[in-house]
Amino acid sequence: MQKITILIHCKDQKGIIAAVTTFIAKVEGNIIYIDQHVDVEQNVFFMRLECEFSNQNKSIESIKEEFSQTLAADFNMSWNLYNQEQKPKMALFVSKYDHCLFDILGRYSADELGVEIPLIISNHNDLRSVAERFDIPFHYVPFTKDNKEEGEARQIELLKRYEINFIVLARYMQIITPKLISLYENKIINIHHSFLPAFPGAKPYHSAFKRGVKIIGATSHYVTEELDEGPIIEQDIARVSHIHSVEDFIMKGRDLERIVLARAIKLHAERKTMVYSNKTVVFS
Amino acid sequence: MQKITILIHCKDQKGIIAAVTTFIAKVEGNIIYIDQHVDVEQNVFFMRLECEFSNQNKSIESIKEEFSQTLAADFNMSWNLYNQEQKPKMALFVSKYDHCLFDILGRYSADELGVEIPLIISNHNDLRSVAERFDIPFHYVPFTKDNKEEGEARQIELLKRYEINFIVLARYMQIITPKLISLYENKIINIHHSFLPAFPGAKPYHSAFKRGVKIIGATSHYVTEELDEGPIIEQDIARVSHIHSVEDFIMKGRDLERIVLARAIKLHAERKTMVYSNKTVVFS
Amino acid sequence: MQKITILIHCKDQKGIIAAVTTFIAKVEGNIIYIDQHVDVEQNVFFMRLECEFSNQNKSIESIKEEFSQTLAADFNMSWNLYNQEQKPKMALFVSKYDHCLFDILGRYSADELGVEIPLIISNHNDLRSVAERFDIPFHYVPFTKDNKEEGEARQIELLKRYEINFIVLARYMQIITPKLISLYENKIINIHHSFLPAFPGAKPYHSAFKRGVKIIGATSHYVTEELDEGPIIEQDIARVSHIHSVEDFIMKGRDLERIVLARAIKLHAERKTMVYSNKTVVFS
Amino acid sequence: MQKITILIHCKDQKGIIAAVTTFIAKVEGNIIYIDQHVDVEQNVFFMRLECEFSNQNKSIESIKEEFSQTLAADFNMSWNLYNQEQKPKMALFVSKYDHCLFDILGRYSADELGVEIPLIISNHNDLRSVAERFDIPFHYVPFTKDNKEEGEARQIELLKRYEINFIVLARYMQIITPKLISLYENKIINIHHSFLPAFPGAKPYHSAFKRGVKIIGATSHYVTEELDEGPIIEQDIARVSHIHSVEDFIMKGRDLERIVLARAIKLHAERKTMVYSNKTVVFS
Repeated sequence: MQKITILIHCKDQKGIIAAVTTFIAKVEGNIIYIDQHVDVEQNVFFMRLECEFSNQNKSIESIKEEFSQTLAADFNMSWNLYNQEQKPKMALFVSKYDHCLFDILGRYSADELGVEIPLIISNHNDLRSVAERFDIPFHYVPFTKDNKEEGEARQIELLKRYEINFIVLARYMQIITPKLISLYENKIINIHHSFLPAFPGAKPYHSAFKRGVKIIGATSHYVTEELDEGPIIEQDIARVSHIHSVEDFIMKGRDLERIVLARAIKLHAERKTMVYSNKTVVFS
Repeated sequence: MQKITILIHCKDQKGIIAAVTTFIAKVEGNIIYIDQHVDVEQNVFFMRLECEFSNQNKSIESIKEEFSQTLAADFNMSWNLYNQEQKPKMALFVSKYDHCLFDILGRYSADELGVEIPLIISNHNDLRSVAERFDIPFHYVPFTKDNKEEGEARQIELLKRYEINFIVLARYMQIITPKLISLYENKIINIHHSFLPAFPGAKPYHSAFKRGVKIIGATSHYVTEELDEGPIIEQDIARVSHIHSVEDFIMKGRDLERIVLARAIKLHAERKTMVYSNKTVVFS
Repeated sequence: MQKITILIHCKDQKGIIAAVTTFIAKVEGNIIYIDQHVDVEQNVFFMRLECEFSNQNKSIESIKEEFSQTLAADFNMSWNLYNQEQKPKMALFVSKYDHCLFDILGRYSADELGVEIPLIISNHNDLRSVAERFDIPFHYVPFTKDNKEEGEARQIELLKRYEINFIVLARYMQIITPKLISLYENKIINIHHSFLPAFPGAKPYHSAFKRGVKIIGATSHYVTEELDEGPIIEQDIARVSHIHSVEDFIMKGRDLERIVLARAIKLHAERKTMVYSNKTVVFS
Repeated sequence: MQKITILIHCKDQKGIIAAVTTFIAKVEGNIIYIDQHVDVEQNVFFMRLECEFSNQNKSIESIKEEFSQTLAADFNMSWNLYNQEQKPKMALFVSKYDHCLFDILGRYSADELGVEIPLIISNHNDLRSVAERFDIPFHYVPFTKDNKEEGEARQIELLKRYEINFIVLARYMQIITPKLISLYENKIINIHHSFLPAFPGAKPYHSAFKRGVKIIGATSHYVTEELDEGPIIEQDIARVSHIHSVEDFIMKGRDLERIVLARAIKLHAERKTMVYSNKTVVFS
């Protein structure tokens, strides 16, 4: 039994849902999940479908071809069709903080994330031993003001060599270059340690402490050229009070960062996110 | 522009979604919301649609008729089709606690709930003045061991007279008779002051305190003959600790009861709930 | 049995706790609650005590006098001593939104807040009927660019006449004057409809929607001259997703506003809040 | 600078707080944290203190001795005094589930828990490789109906050899014997995968699914002879809906189990928990 996931967005038009569902019926698919959303302001239609095909004579490629030439053309759709058996390949970028790395690799070992992790890239050597414990190739790629171009070239070379589909910045503490961002548009996930848009930039826990908030947060988002301004995928929060020091904020925040990043990875890996107008549609 | 909501459930079958969406397209409706769910274990299909019709020549009645004779018959559907302009009529049953009553009437005054409240029924006279403040007819219907039949008859007579669609027990402290339950099957909403199935029955806050839980809850559910065992619509929780007394639990619980009941009322009023196998599907 | 609450803050010094608790023992009080906090960065000590006195011969006034001349002088304390039987008097300022008003008056009727509400002041007449339903004097005090001084004078006159201890802005949509703020320093509670410091200013739900956040919030804080920058008392949040419109944000936000404001009122009324360095210590 | 933590409970009596704080002042300690609780129903007093001593001439042992002979005797206290530099030694019991194990070892590597983990005991060999990755001795101790006594003897022998202070059952799937429970009274922490007391026993996610709850939970508690009835340390919850299968409940539950267990370990390790009447006082 073949299973596919289809993501669609296009201008909202009458009859799209009927057309799509009729197409699936025609190619002898069985819809096991359908979700749809209309952004009324922007007049954009979004859809996510999961289908099963028991007809062995019809390949996913031929369905894709047919979809492309009929429906997708008729409605001028942006779309993707994924074979559910192909796990996306994810690269991990890390620096010195290890809590998100441990969490991701623990989940990866327990097969929770639905991804392949062929490599870890870091601008420091500190976490090499963690990578080795989990038998994942670790590549030290220095990245400083002075070697930006060289660093970027090395990153891109590795990402290509390992056929990476998306990138996760697990508290990676360096800038991502515009070129890399454009190569992986809406495919680089960052975890920011505050409830964005409150406290962007560096040292958000210190800022939160200073402001005396009663709730702290973490935000996972796709990386864009504007720092901490990309489309938000997931957020979560924890309560704090006057008894908590900055260090307590940081410690509580680690759990938020772990969980919010893990959820974002899973949503992306299961092709449940779509980006439009610097916002996400998350079919969960 | 006419707007309708359709709720459907039936045995899961291939092609239902395509058939329904094609039907809507045929009668010149525009689907503005579609959600669907398949209970894989039980092999049951659920769907909720909202549609707009700009064709003034086609009445909702005629669409209903056509739906009934074609689709509904073909797929052996249980279904309902609602005109969104008709607000459901809700009866409030209360006893002596006033916090849920105040909350519901405050929301009603602020037009948040999407219902009509033509009457309040109570087995005590204590809350008459609250009802009067909000200009809602208040009917005192005594209900004790000794006058059950009389009380039930009076309740049913009032519910019929005011053409009540559903009933909300806002901390009503008396049993609902099997006859009334069967007349309003899956249409009587209760708020239970615990996180069901923990602590059913009387004095749940006292039981929760005794057990030393760190979280208390409230549960709104449809009333069935089995006390506190009906299909759950909504639940929420609040954290407690050793510093809280039973009285603190009760006070914190009041906010839970208010919010959880208000959400359940709104979900029901907007026809977002469906019941199957003593569970709810809540399209929210 | 007399019950008092004492709030203290002063420079952190060795032996304060021992000195205070020994004092209470000496005047034959029984400590039923003690909580303390040290702001290590600022080197400030905070304490909240609740005590019972069964000795009928000792008046609260005499204890207060003794405390003032010994302990408070020795440690150079800022302090307050409250008789728990005296409920604080609270003025409600409203404009046109009624949801917080209904919620507060519902809680007030149910005697949940531990305050007296002798009057409501509004710059519009819209909510007069709500006030009347709850039998609370309603004063229409216009406040525009052109009559600021007159409006402020009228507000202050009313607050004095009713001996108001603190003010609650229940979605009051006008500026509070610096003079009124200084008369009621750390005694004016506002509810802001966002998770501050994200989205200060007007239309925060619209800004949150535009940014595509996955969580919205509300913040209650003491009013200072810097708009939306005062010490935060309480915050809470609700999850949102792409399916929610701005109108949904606003509707969900109403529940946040209600609850967060009610909690802040209760904390203030029970003398559980202290302000320092534009932050609050909340002993809850 | 020496730092100690003192935990006290005894019958509630007048003047305890003053006596304790005066004692600390007398031995030249500086209280940096004090928290206290009175269980009014049971008339029991609880206190937790953290103190610093800069006087190098006074050993912790001598303070302990003095405390024991004066205060502790006068008020008939149950008490413990801990040197904050001594990290408690914790044994991990596991079976086949690895998610809590990975999480704990990740946190341990990141030095978040404040414990030593000298050994892991398991009734299966499956997780040996995980232990080895983190360089922690792994002991396979079979435990079945037929070898209970032998298994228990081996467990106790290991716990003694490694001088274990407390035990964490990280989804250990075997019964703990009464003898072991009595040796480690209120020192064995279990994680149960439901919101207790709802769904005790086996397969709680299946039961929760069947009941149609909208919220699932996890509970960490001290182990007593009554299965799943011990004093609750911490609980947390996650929302679910009709779209989630049992498998989704289990997956979401893994995060709850991880976090709730990690919090309980940290609270216990920092000596913030006290047990009384099958409930916990948690000073956090």
